Amino acid sequence: MKNNNQNRLEKIRHSLSHLLAMTVMEKFPQVKLGIGPVIENGFYYDFDFKKSAISEENLPEIEKQIKELIKKDLKFKKETISLTEAKKLFKDQPYKLELIEELHRAKKPITIYITSFPRQSASSPRESAFSDLCAGPHVKSTLRRAQGKLLRRGSGQADGINPEAFKLVKIAGAYWRGSEKNPMLTRIYGVAFGAKKELENYLSLQAEAEKRDHRVLGEKLEIFTFDEEVGAGLPLWLPKGAILRHLIEEFLFKELTEEGYQWLISPHIANLNLWKTSGHWGFYRENMYPPIKIDKEEYLLKPMNCPFHLKVYNSKIRSWRDLPLRFAELGTVYRYERSGVLHGLTRVRGFTQDDAHIFTTPEGLSKELLRLLNFATKILKTFGFKDYKIHLSTRPKKYIGTLKSWDKATKALEYALKESKLKYQIDPGEGVFYGPKIDIKIKDALGRALQCTTIQVDLNLPERFDIFYIDNKGKKQRPIMVHRAILGSLERFIGVLLEHYSGALPLWLMPVQVEVINVGAAQRKYAQLVFNELGDNEIRAELLDKNLTVSKRIREAEIQKIPYIIVVGEKEEKNETVSIRERGRRDIKEMSLGKFIEKIKNEIETKKIS
Amino acid sequence: MKNNNQNRLEKIRHSLSHLLAMTVMEKFPQVKLGIGPVIENGFYYDFDFKKSAISEENLPEIEKQIKELIKKDLKFKKETISLTEAKKLFKDQPYKLELIEELHRAKKPITIYITSFPRQSASSPRESAFSDLCAGPHVKSTLRRAQGKLLRRGSGQADGINPEAFKLVKIAGAYWRGSEKNPMLTRIYGVAFGAKKELENYLSLQAEAEKRDHRVLGEKLEIFTFDEEVGAGLPLWLPKGAILRHLIEEFLFKELTEEGYQWLISPHIANLNLWKTSGHWGFYRENMYPPIKIDKEEYLLKPMNCPFHLKVYNSKIRSWRDLPLRFAELGTVYRYERSGVLHGLTRVRGFTQDDAHIFTTPEGLSKELLRLLNFATKILKTFGFKDYKIHLSTRPKKYIGTLKSWDKATKALEYALKESKLKYQIDPGEGVFYGPKIDIKIKDALGRALQCTTIQVDLNLPERFDIFYIDNKGKKQRPIMVHRAILGSLERFIGVLLEHYSGALPLWLMPVQVEVINVGAAQRKYAQLVFNELGDNEIRAELLDKNLTVSKRIREAEIQKIPYIIVVGEKEEKNETVSIRERGRRDIKEMSLGKFIEKIKNEIETKKIS
Repeated sequence: MKNNNQNRLEKIRHSLSHLLAMTVMEKFPQVKLGIGPVIENGFYYDFDFKKSAISEENLPEIEKQIKELIKKDLKFKKETISLTEAKKLFKDQPYKLELIEELHRAKKPITIYITSFPRQSASSPRESAFSDLCAGPHVKSTLRRAQGKLLRRGSGQADGINPEAFKLVKIAGAYWRGSEKNPMLTRIYGVAFGAKKELENYLSLQAEAEKRDHRVLGEKLEIFTFDEEVGAGLPLWLPKGAILRHLIEEFLFKELTEEGYQWLISPHIANLNLWKTSGHWGFYRENMYPPIKIDKEEYLLKPMNCPFHLKVYNSKIRSWRDLPLRFAELGTVYRYERSGVLHGLTRVRGFTQDDAHIFTTPEGLSKELLRLLNFATKILKTFGFKDYKIHLSTRPKKYIGTLKSWDKATKALEYALKESKLKYQIDPGEGVFYGPKIDIKIKDALGRALQCTTIQVDLNLPERFDIFYIDNKGKKQRPIMVHRAILGSLERFIGVLLEHYSGALPLWLMPVQVEVINVGAAQRKYAQLVFNELGDNEIRAELLDKNLTVSKRIREAEIQKIPYIIVVGEKEEKNETVSIRERGRRDIKEMSLGKFIEKIKNEIETKKIS
Repeated sequence: MKNNNQNRLEKIRHSLSHLLAMTVMEKFPQVKLGIGPVIENGFYYDFDFKKSAISEENLPEIEKQIKELIKKDLKFKKETISLTEAKKLFKDQPYKLELIEELHRAKKPITIYITSFPRQSASSPRESAFSDLCAGPHVKSTLRRAQGKLLRRGSGQADGINPEAFKLVKIAGAYWRGSEKNPMLTRIYGVAFGAKKELENYLSLQAEAEKRDHRVLGEKLEIFTFDEEVGAGLPLWLPKGAILRHLIEEFLFKELTEEGYQWLISPHIANLNLWKTSGHWGFYRENMYPPIKIDKEEYLLKPMNCPFHLKVYNSKIRSWRDLPLRFAELGTVYRYERSGVLHGLTRVRGFTQDDAHIFTTPEGLSKELLRLLNFATKILKTFGFKDYKIHLSTRPKKYIGTLKSWDKATKALEYALKESKLKYQIDPGEGVFYGPKIDIKIKDALGRALQCTTIQVDLNLPERFDIFYIDNKGKKQRPIMVHRAILGSLERFIGVLLEHYSGALPLWLMPVQVEVINVGAAQRKYAQLVFNELGDNEIRAELLDKNLTVSKRIREAEIQKIPYIIVVGEKEEKNETVSIRERGRRDIKEMSLGKFIEKIKNEIETKKIS
């Protein structure tokens, strides 16, 4: 459900896209128009410039012209027209004609929006300043009014467009209707809000987000890389990235083991029969890669780990005494994503879930979910995420299982949320067909809410795999199954971490924790001694054998966001000390090596968030 | 090259397969004969019994009849016959006729071996006791002679068959010519040696190997399982198996990191283009699974990690100062194996290599190989393997690269072997086409030599991926690439470990190190205290909440080969001690919990081999 403000923003953005088209057409009368929809935070319009060209340098000028149009208080009016009229009106616009034909074939009404100057009669689209094939909605007029009265700039909720609250931001190529077979059009993007302040906030957030882009940081800090010959969406983890992953994996291994999880390892492919039993072949196929033929059978890359865990559950008879059983796996799964949506580590084709499946008696569900919620937030907090946006999604229209089982599961999830004192919102009908779920979005340093944890009750797979346990009366019972991932995927989470910390990860997660720099060749030996001592204390240090000046080496270490830079010169060698620059601080401290080691060992141990 | 003894054993085994067929035919005149070749340790013969049936219970009787035939001093004689003769002679043997037709088409001579009693004239196969289509070789006569003289039983090297040194061991089904489209025949297996003692040794080794079969132990100790719906050759690691793997992986992580390796993580699929560049698509395709189509491109499950490591090498400019670069990955690869050859963990379709690729300057190769050899044997020794069979395989007939580069690489491998004082044998011409290699086979508790470590110089891939480094004069140079795995694969190595230790793995590798058993309900609390104390000291303990008697619980822990079983009763609680049963010992020791913890922590720390 959209609220009023969203409705208003949609009208503003949509109208701006028309004004953009109108302006561009004035400058390039031969331009052919594609479509101009509203998108998150703004709008775009696609143009076929044929032989003319436009660059981002032209955008300020176009923006200026749009602002002038706004000030002229243009009117927007909707009209339904006949096929013949439409064809006539858009006779020079082949893309529009294509859309008109489609609307006609689909027996949908053909509507246009007429944009006209206030003194024009604007009764006919031909006489108007601009008309576009469009279903709306749009503002009535570009100047802002409330109850018919014109408003000053900067006023609040009202129809009309604030000329200070939009901006044309970039140009990109885009195939007509997204298909490589079609011509490449030029897409001009704009962002638009109700108030100038909102635009400014958005733009500064964007600028900050760009600086923190994990794809840029990932390369700079040598965490991962992509290679065209390997394939899109398939990251290669570089040595420093592999250390980071290992640290997170080992942390999870210890925490989960202590929490009573048992680990499993399952293969990356399985016979098609398994995916038929699980139902993935039926309802999840579009996300899976096509089968691989082995002898006479077909195998599939796994998009999920659950069927394997159910097989392990079924590998022996389980008693009520064995429950809850918590099976965890850092399982690498492969899912189809269109190449256009791939994005660094956060949208990939192969990723490693911190996956687990919990099997519990129905009576044990609430308690287990509460424990799980507490555990999940404890893990998230360790990484520095303390603010959440939590959603409880309930029974959708299409569902399997009984109303009673849905009710029990939903109540158990609510119980856990309430007992853990976490704030949450209910999304009615947004659950998966097989059960209700809790999603936890973490808020990052830029205030963005990012999906991580998911806790889903599954009323489907226990039936499909016919799993059971023997209760205390010796009778077979069906356990409840819970899917859960806390970080979500290691790839995505590391992408989030890099952006949240702008690459300056907490000490315990940094691939290199200390950079050791000797001032001159004479201190090389002492630097080596310091380096060895750090290594013996399981501190990850680096001592580069490079022909660089001290200041350049410091600069390099700073770019790499290394938490501690130790410089050793004549003085430090004599005093048996080290001079320390802490990341993000200007002052330099001299202290004994032993004291320094003690200090950072403690910071590592406590997983201090810098 | 076969030696004399191998030649002699081949004749004995081959002749026994004919005697087996002769005996079976006498008993079942309608039987149709397949083939009867020599195999490792013995021979088999395939029979089509049509409606008759034979079981392993019949084997002793057949064996007895063969022994009697041997004592009759049967003669074997080779003859070449015409197609017409052959067709006439084998007119009732359809399988033999099929083979005869093939020999004829291939323009090969048709030879038979005629078996006859000494007093028969045996000039014609029809008059003989038995003839079989066969290329030989066979013994001249079944009784043993040296220089024409008959020998007593138990004598050494001589022609003839020792009736006490063979045994028919089992019956299995086998498709004619290995194809499922053909009829299923009955295969009778026999083992045969020169001397009775050799047979006895072999049989007792077999009995011991069966007891130690890792497939049986793996199930009993809950290390892994297979599931038909998941697929053949794709193990599911159970919780205890996952702990074992994790322990080995962490051990490798620490050791390799200390040794200067850098870790990488690469995806399980890659674009076909990568495999074309690497050459695997050209020369390794039969071991790879068919491509997976993603959008318009094809992807392959990785059978090897090397191309990814080369891509990482190429992801930045490398200087001579960076070399040697040692890239390690615990990479799970998928290779095609026929379903018939799959065997537990030791022959699977997906396995995790402890893979690494070392890039070095040509000048640094010898030193690096020596270091690698020392490191590899150090790792193997930690797991308790101290005896090796080492092979150096040199340039084969078909090879790539220059003679000079082969010569240098081979000399570097030899240098490393000599300097490390390891015994080795040279296998001339047995190297891979891309470079010479060292293979290390470990000897297990049963004296079996099992392939683990491989060290291969690669003169091919550096060219294919055009990798280089900048030397100290600023010039581009081609580095040398070395592939190496120490354990081989985790799957196979764990299979080997289970058999070598008969499941009683060294303490540091045991998923459960201590079983805590309380005598009565009154000691439950004290048992829990002991259990917690062990856990706090990072000792993996188990305290089962089962309604079993103490003796049954002890028995269960013994079956699970748990190294230490702690029993706590009234006395122990009062004394604040524990009573300990050490695996493989009868005596029970009482000691303070603290002392016990200290003792086993030390054993874990030092990776003591029990």
